[in-house]
Amino acid sequence: MSSQGFESQIFEKERIQLGDTEEYIVRGGRHLIEKLPEAFEGISQVGVIGWSSQGPAQAKNLRDSLEGTSINVVVGLRDNSSSIPSAEAAGFTKENGTLGEMYQVIKESDLVLLLIADGAQAKVYKDVFSAMKPGATLGLSHGFLLGYLNSVGESFPENINVIAVCPKGMGPSVRRLYEQGKEVNGAGINASFAVHQDVDGKATNVALGWAVALGAPFSFQTTLESEFKSDIYGERGILLGAVHGICEGLYDYNLQHNVSPEDAFKRTAECITGPITKIISKEGMKGVYARFNDNEKELFQKAYSASYHPAFEILLEIYQEVASCNEIRSVILANERFSRYPMGKIDGTPMWVVGESVRANRSEKPEDRPIDPTTAGVFVATMMAQIDVLLEHGHSYSEVINESIIESVDSLNPYIDYKGIAFMIDNCSTTARLGARKWAPRFDYNLRQQAYTQLKRDDVVDSELIAKFESHSVHDAFLVCAELRPTVDIAVLEV
Amino acid sequence: MSSQGFESQIFEKERIQLGDTEEYIVRGGRHLIEKLPEAFEGISQVGVIGWSSQGPAQAKNLRDSLEGTSINVVVGLRDNSSSIPSAEAAGFTKENGTLGEMYQVIKESDLVLLLIADGAQAKVYKDVFSAMKPGATLGLSHGFLLGYLNSVGESFPENINVIAVCPKGMGPSVRRLYEQGKEVNGAGINASFAVHQDVDGKATNVALGWAVALGAPFSFQTTLESEFKSDIYGERGILLGAVHGICEGLYDYNLQHNVSPEDAFKRTAECITGPITKIISKEGMKGVYARFNDNEKELFQKAYSASYHPAFEILLEIYQEVASCNEIRSVILANERFSRYPMGKIDGTPMWVVGESVRANRSEKPEDRPIDPTTAGVFVATMMAQIDVLLEHGHSYSEVINESIIESVDSLNPYIDYKGIAFMIDNCSTTARLGARKWAPRFDYNLRQQAYTQLKRDDVVDSELIAKFESHSVHDAFLVCAELRPTVDIAVLEV
Repeated sequence: MSSQGFESQIFEKERIQLGDTEEYIVRGGRHLIEKLPEAFEGISQVGVIGWSSQGPAQAKNLRDSLEGTSINVVVGLRDNSSSIPSAEAAGFTKENGTLGEMYQVIKESDLVLLLIADGAQAKVYKDVFSAMKPGATLGLSHGFLLGYLNSVGESFPENINVIAVCPKGMGPSVRRLYEQGKEVNGAGINASFAVHQDVDGKATNVALGWAVALGAPFSFQTTLESEFKSDIYGERGILLGAVHGICEGLYDYNLQHNVSPEDAFKRTAECITGPITKIISKEGMKGVYARFNDNEKELFQKAYSASYHPAFEILLEIYQEVASCNEIRSVILANERFSRYPMGKIDGTPMWVVGESVRANRSEKPEDRPIDPTTAGVFVATMMAQIDVLLEHGHSYSEVINESIIESVDSLNPYIDYKGIAFMIDNCSTTARLGARKWAPRFDYNLRQQAYTQLKRDDVVDSELIAKFESHSVHDAFLVCAELRPTVDIAVLEV
Repeated sequence: MSSQGFESQIFEKERIQLGDTEEYIVRGGRHLIEKLPEAFEGISQVGVIGWSSQGPAQAKNLRDSLEGTSINVVVGLRDNSSSIPSAEAAGFTKENGTLGEMYQVIKESDLVLLLIADGAQAKVYKDVFSAMKPGATLGLSHGFLLGYLNSVGESFPENINVIAVCPKGMGPSVRRLYEQGKEVNGAGINASFAVHQDVDGKATNVALGWAVALGAPFSFQTTLESEFKSDIYGERGILLGAVHGICEGLYDYNLQHNVSPEDAFKRTAECITGPITKIISKEGMKGVYARFNDNEKELFQKAYSASYHPAFEILLEIYQEVASCNEIRSVILANERFSRYPMGKIDGTPMWVVGESVRANRSEKPEDRPIDPTTAGVFVATMMAQIDVLLEHGHSYSEVINESIIESVDSLNPYIDYKGIAFMIDNCSTTARLGARKWAPRFDYNLRQQAYTQLKRDDVVDSELIAKFESHSVHDAFLVCAELRPTVDIAVLEV
């Protein structure tokens, strides 16, 4: 990346100051949709390959955004894919020419969005590469394939563009906020974009056009490598794995202190996915802290101080496992075990069963969902530790904030709030689902063993750590990012 | 390995039938100690490098066994090693010529037992190799270094013997049972041995002599590769990780069913490390089952049926992670993080605090420690799943039984029984301690989510699975192995 970031004659870039660094972004919005034909010059067909988490969302958003142009959006699936009925129900059919066999669609498309599961990408990438037209553009929605190619010493073909647009939210949120964004111009899920290979000089415009078409309120630049690390790391951390482990561990902690199961659920999951999520989305992490009285502030400080390092320890381990490609190798091995052991149900445990009845009896009054300061301290400390690990490894503020805060509060936590932990985790990619199952227990144990055992100590508050939290550069940087996207409280629906 | 296994003119080999296979073993015993000078022909100094788990035990046992011969046992440590005072307290001193700087000791020794931590082996192996005399023998106590060399594409120098003797128990047990074995000829910890390189034709005798000198009741042949896989796998499974995760999860399960903390501890950890361990040690897994009345048998069957597959799933994942070298790469990365985050305390959680008072008030009457059939079902199912994964991957019955049953009940569980979970886990190697911390939470979550949620179902008993358990070939094979070692109930002491 140059210091100017990137060049586009079609989409205006905007300089923003985040922390101590300058970044360039492109702000989205419905008014930019008219520029898509220009950005997609030379593209007459967009092939959307796959129909799991991102596939349906992106195919629908692109179709809506490209309506009235001469550019077709065609879904490509294996001939025996079990997803065909669902794609047909969404209007992608063989009859109207918008559904086809995956390799046929790849052959005919000028822009191929490869949105099949990571494990499948690792299996079929050679066939995909050889099916693509020379000079066509391969679009990825995260960097897994690069990580995989790195781990086996291979690379992309030299005669194609390779770009990525990576929405910072699960597929269903990408669709849901795009729909809600029809009324609120620019509401949607932020995206990062990367230009990995640019054989014809058009790759940047295609990437930005793709991001605009998905409804991204703003798009920031990254590299495929930086993206796959932060993405695979983030979902194992606060986005999925850590939030699950925190809920389970704090629930048991409350039970051990003679709190009833219902109240334990309210003090933990309900509190994180309700008020804490809403406040962070609008005001950032300090907004939660600012609401507490002195007694509550002390409880928050204790929980924050006790939790930050145990969370950081696991997050650092995750980052290194991802960066070393160990995590990708594990995902590939896990995919091969599915025929014998499919992924199991995670929300049959007492906590989530209790949660069903708590949700059924939920009050609409905000004062009935108070914030538990201990839960807030644990959650915010883990979010901050995730941010610090990423900053320590040189990720940009945009990436850090989207991957650690915005995706959590705008895209993911609302799904737990609506229907529990599995409804969030199991609507994500296979790689994410595996990672959440692998790392949630690790966060839980480390916090139970190292943090919750310390909460009763009088000297647990680490005032230096609290001062760092209060003056952290991420707070102001978050507010800059937050202003770039109209906040719409996502209304989660069945998917 | 030939079909005859191995040849030795010094130690008699014995054919045993285990399951559907024949194996050859060497039975140990104090009467064989007189053969050590012959087995160690050409060796005038044994260098024991390192002083963590195996180092002290092996140095002391070798010194005792070689007393009165001309063969010296010398401990080699880094000049600034914090272990020097402990080695001196055990009588290994510079003054009497039995303690030296590690590379100096390696240079002077004809048999070099490299018992430093795995992470250290990965760092210093090149210096160790180049310090060794041509024609000397490198002795390992497990195959980690081969796994590491495989993962980085290197190998052992060609001009040395490479052998392994791998006691199937932690260091403190190797010492403790050797001491107890003075009164009971042949009591001790079984060992596997492997001859990886044999430049002078003497390697097998040296390996068998070493095993006899450690007090192994019987020694069975393996390969370094088979050993490192089963060893690293086993400690992550029922030996350390699984037993920890099972105790934690079942404890919470009992609390959720309104059992008091004390009784919950008694029904889980106390029950596993007390009666279940003692019965399995003498009679095998079916001995536990045989004690139950019909009602209890049904509870056992439910727990066994619900737990076997969730445990198998995690065990298969562990096996593949170990075999792919992912686990070894993770251990190396973890070692590099210790300067920032040393391993934390695992027994400060409520369960193990309650356990302290339960132990303090423990009755000596066996009838006060009844067997909980649900706990027994979960534990035995996990042990059996561990056995089945190993058999499926071609490990010999000797290795499977020692790595999955005997090490658990004769060496490790008694340490939990004496002083809790950390006293067992943190007396093991760094690789083992890391593995237990990594995998215990995975067993716990998978069993909580997939098994304990099923226990109330009427149709949970899988009669085919129970029939397989009852007729499993491992039961008779275990009894053959059990007869080969005089059973002494290990009396655990401070270490």
